[in-house]
Amino acid sequence: MTHVKHMKWWGWGDDGVSFEHHNKPEFAPFVQAAIGLDVSAPPAPPQSFESLDVPPSRLHDSLREQLTDIVGAEHVHVDDMRRVVHTYGKSIRDLLRVRSGAIERCPDVVVYPADEAQVRALVRAAVDADAVLIPFGGGTNISGSLEPATDEQRVVISLDLGRLDQLLDVDDASGLARIQAGAQGPDLERALAARGWTLGHFPDSFAHSTLGGWIATRSSGMQSDKYGDIADIVRGVRLARPDGVVNIRAIPSASTGPSVREMIVGSEGRLGVITEATVQVHRIPPVRQILGYLFPSWDAGLAAMRDIAASDASPSVTRVSDAPESAFSFATRTPSSGLKSLGTKALTTFLRKRGWDLSQMCLSFIGYEGSAAHVRYEKRLVRRIVRRHGGVYVGEGPGALYDQKKFDTPYIRDFLLDRGAAADVSETAAPWSALRPLYDTTMAAARRAYDDLGVQGWIMCHLSHSYHSGACLYFTFAFVHGDEPIKQYDHVKSAIQQSFIDAGGTLSHHHAVGVEHAPWLAQDISPEGVALMRGLLDSADPNGNFNPDKIIPTAGP
Amino acid sequence: MTHVKHMKWWGWGDDGVSFEHHNKPEFAPFVQAAIGLDVSAPPAPPQSFESLDVPPSRLHDSLREQLTDIVGAEHVHVDDMRRVVHTYGKSIRDLLRVRSGAIERCPDVVVYPADEAQVRALVRAAVDADAVLIPFGGGTNISGSLEPATDEQRVVISLDLGRLDQLLDVDDASGLARIQAGAQGPDLERALAARGWTLGHFPDSFAHSTLGGWIATRSSGMQSDKYGDIADIVRGVRLARPDGVVNIRAIPSASTGPSVREMIVGSEGRLGVITEATVQVHRIPPVRQILGYLFPSWDAGLAAMRDIAASDASPSVTRVSDAPESAFSFATRTPSSGLKSLGTKALTTFLRKRGWDLSQMCLSFIGYEGSAAHVRYEKRLVRRIVRRHGGVYVGEGPGALYDQKKFDTPYIRDFLLDRGAAADVSETAAPWSALRPLYDTTMAAARRAYDDLGVQGWIMCHLSHSYHSGACLYFTFAFVHGDEPIKQYDHVKSAIQQSFIDAGGTLSHHHAVGVEHAPWLAQDISPEGVALMRGLLDSADPNGNFNPDKIIPTAGP
Repeated sequence: MTHVKHMKWWGWGDDGVSFEHHNKPEFAPFVQAAIGLDVSAPPAPPQSFESLDVPPSRLHDSLREQLTDIVGAEHVHVDDMRRVVHTYGKSIRDLLRVRSGAIERCPDVVVYPADEAQVRALVRAAVDADAVLIPFGGGTNISGSLEPATDEQRVVISLDLGRLDQLLDVDDASGLARIQAGAQGPDLERALAARGWTLGHFPDSFAHSTLGGWIATRSSGMQSDKYGDIADIVRGVRLARPDGVVNIRAIPSASTGPSVREMIVGSEGRLGVITEATVQVHRIPPVRQILGYLFPSWDAGLAAMRDIAASDASPSVTRVSDAPESAFSFATRTPSSGLKSLGTKALTTFLRKRGWDLSQMCLSFIGYEGSAAHVRYEKRLVRRIVRRHGGVYVGEGPGALYDQKKFDTPYIRDFLLDRGAAADVSETAAPWSALRPLYDTTMAAARRAYDDLGVQGWIMCHLSHSYHSGACLYFTFAFVHGDEPIKQYDHVKSAIQQSFIDAGGTLSHHHAVGVEHAPWLAQDISPEGVALMRGLLDSADPNGNFNPDKIIPTAGP
Repeated sequence: MTHVKHMKWWGWGDDGVSFEHHNKPEFAPFVQAAIGLDVSAPPAPPQSFESLDVPPSRLHDSLREQLTDIVGAEHVHVDDMRRVVHTYGKSIRDLLRVRSGAIERCPDVVVYPADEAQVRALVRAAVDADAVLIPFGGGTNISGSLEPATDEQRVVISLDLGRLDQLLDVDDASGLARIQAGAQGPDLERALAARGWTLGHFPDSFAHSTLGGWIATRSSGMQSDKYGDIADIVRGVRLARPDGVVNIRAIPSASTGPSVREMIVGSEGRLGVITEATVQVHRIPPVRQILGYLFPSWDAGLAAMRDIAASDASPSVTRVSDAPESAFSFATRTPSSGLKSLGTKALTTFLRKRGWDLSQMCLSFIGYEGSAAHVRYEKRLVRRIVRRHGGVYVGEGPGALYDQKKFDTPYIRDFLLDRGAAADVSETAAPWSALRPLYDTTMAAARRAYDDLGVQGWIMCHLSHSYHSGACLYFTFAFVHGDEPIKQYDHVKSAIQQSFIDAGGTLSHHHAVGVEHAPWLAQDISPEGVALMRGLLDSADPNGNFNPDKIIPTAGP
């Protein structure tokens, strides 16, 4: 049996780990007020796995034999649990479907190759058998990049990269590491740390996602201000194709025509299977700090982030929450948390004296890395900008808490789902000048969508991932769903996505296209841009064997 | 008549401007020693334009009428001078051919559209007439990206973007400027400066090259350490295609599948015509300084640049010359230049006392930008690293001189050609760990190639464009050529390029593929990588109308 750990079939993260609110006294009243949900009511956890109606495997004997010849019988799995785990990612749509037993089409087989040679053989075998091949990393995707089409008549193979999880080599002089595509965040950071290095790529999915998945979806981590998006981090990459391996060597920068490296980044399995990458790694800095700040308003917070991006300072993290998300952060604190200082009477009195409307207060985190002297220098530059926008420094506590809690948020979704509420995220990036109008129209669009549904909905937002010319706005939304949760979700999600595009934002800053965002692709990069992309994808996969219908519909033969 | 200024038909730059050595007393003896050329011998300037054998235009009446309808008769040119000026770029191969009258195939017509609508109409007309369309910016390319195939039977249209030269808009809040593709470096910097902005993109060709050309060739400027390569700078771009315009909006970062933006960057006219781009611009910093340093050896210089790239410092320019190029810099100084301090007895005595072998001394330039305090801070960080590697600071003079002379170098090539010597450049990028071995094998390969030819050749090198994981190495080579200069040049150039690839470098860091570097593309990005790229190009241009055979051979119908 293959020893690759997977998340819960019905939700996020490790078995036995879940969101806990008993130590967060402000959480229950906050949720009650926000979406009208009584979290003390008894939960309705997912049905048992045995009660699911899992479609039978269509794997036929000849292909099974070939797969077995390639990876060994013990790494070819057709049991229902493996197939269900490999059917979806972890979007709210995925969770709603898997929990309700709405599994129309599963992969017919899950295979775990041991190395690139086996991946190459699997790719060849899939094409020869006219099967569908879907690469699988950690399964954390929230854009529908993993699911087979419900009407797929061919055999669907889920190719799990979990056994390709090794740090192969570190080039100490160059700050480059060769890492296999299936390595998960914590494992690869641990292996790098043992040699004094860090990748610095920390998406919210970090605990369960993989290097190959990050590349295939053009991921970005919360410290992208310093370390770059995955598109910047990946210098070399290998992609298994039917006739051989695309081998992009690690080059710091090149002028070799349309960038094939950038074609592979974000390709979501549509061009082949990423087997390894050579990535930039950095020496673990002497000081790594995330500090908390408060701004009197969202506008002040946004303007401060923009001025920091344009300044001589270069922090590792820039993040500011709007007032609703700031309130949410306060509501999820434990009495012993680093945020507790924010509730002190002294602070609130001080802020009120400065004329603050505390209901408009925005919480911000800014990260610093480098030598102690460098961090001191950067903090001084930032402090000046924060002050210019009326902000105040509130200490290391909130930052430390943020750093420690950052990967726990996805568990809240399952907690809410158990209680009949749906929550998900939508994020975009846009130029600085577009952020405030985009925010306003998106909040209004969500509220209109909630009104249409007749539900009490919640939406909150933060800015993160600053660039020279703009930043990411990340929205989280939730509501108590009725009998048609997916239809309701679609209505809200579509309103938000359309608002992004209309206001000059992209369909997603770091969550890929998949099938979830595909309806907005032509509006985002123009129909002629889609045509160029289609030419690439169709020519690379004329029979539609590679994760078909993701990003744009596959032409087929 | 169209008022777009062009460079000399036979060489670099503006008429009446040429390299002058009479005020550089060390130049003549240096050249004599380096390549055995007596520069005081009477030059043999290029033959007269009238004596050239220019192939007649094949433009037929019906297409001429269509072109005239689109841009107006006064912007359709078939005269020999315009057609010759639009035949080649400015590589040594180009100059040797045009000077010797070896012009086998010229564009049949040069058209100057006024706006994007006219570009679109021209693209459509070219495809409908099955003509070849070659976009032309400043004509500075040195990789053969502009020339028509000698056996091209179809009508060849050179589409000159010179009239699309406007700064259209600046988004002050976002640091983004919309600029037309035909804008040349000095003009667009002037227009931006009038509004307080700079693009910060300063390739050696700056004085004559255009925004569209920079994008089409994946260019990089000498301050790329701060401002990024053109691939980083360009956020939005518009590309005219037969059925419409690809419109990539300015987004700071996006996860929308294989990046269409990155397909257009480096496309060399193979996908259509770039009409405008939205680019990152920066406020002109209060302080902009380039300082000079000396290192006792090439190894010390390389190690210092690597350590700077890994440090908390982020200078705008990092550059160090090897000993031969340092000697060349000293030889081209004027008695009143900023470099004169380097010749003082006090300095040489001081360095000898420190144990330096002055023949191994390497000249370095490091640039700083920002507030006065920030520049002071950065200089302190760098100074510490320079000292650790035995380097010494030699003042602002050399840096100011470098900054002032930086765009003059191409004129030297014409001066040498007039006297029977061929000079050109080859550059690459590679990981830090590969740079020294790559340098050694490349110098050896060039020397072997010179030996094969029986000539006294010269080769020198500098490092510039530092990245986290590596840098660019830029080689300049020269020799007195015989009766078959192009064959001789090919032999040397090929040896250098092959050495780049064998040692882990790319075929070019910032000079594109064109036809000159195309033979190494499959070795660089692997045959399967070329296959992906071919799929994109062939699907976008099934009949081979767009600048065919550049980057990779066009399939054709």
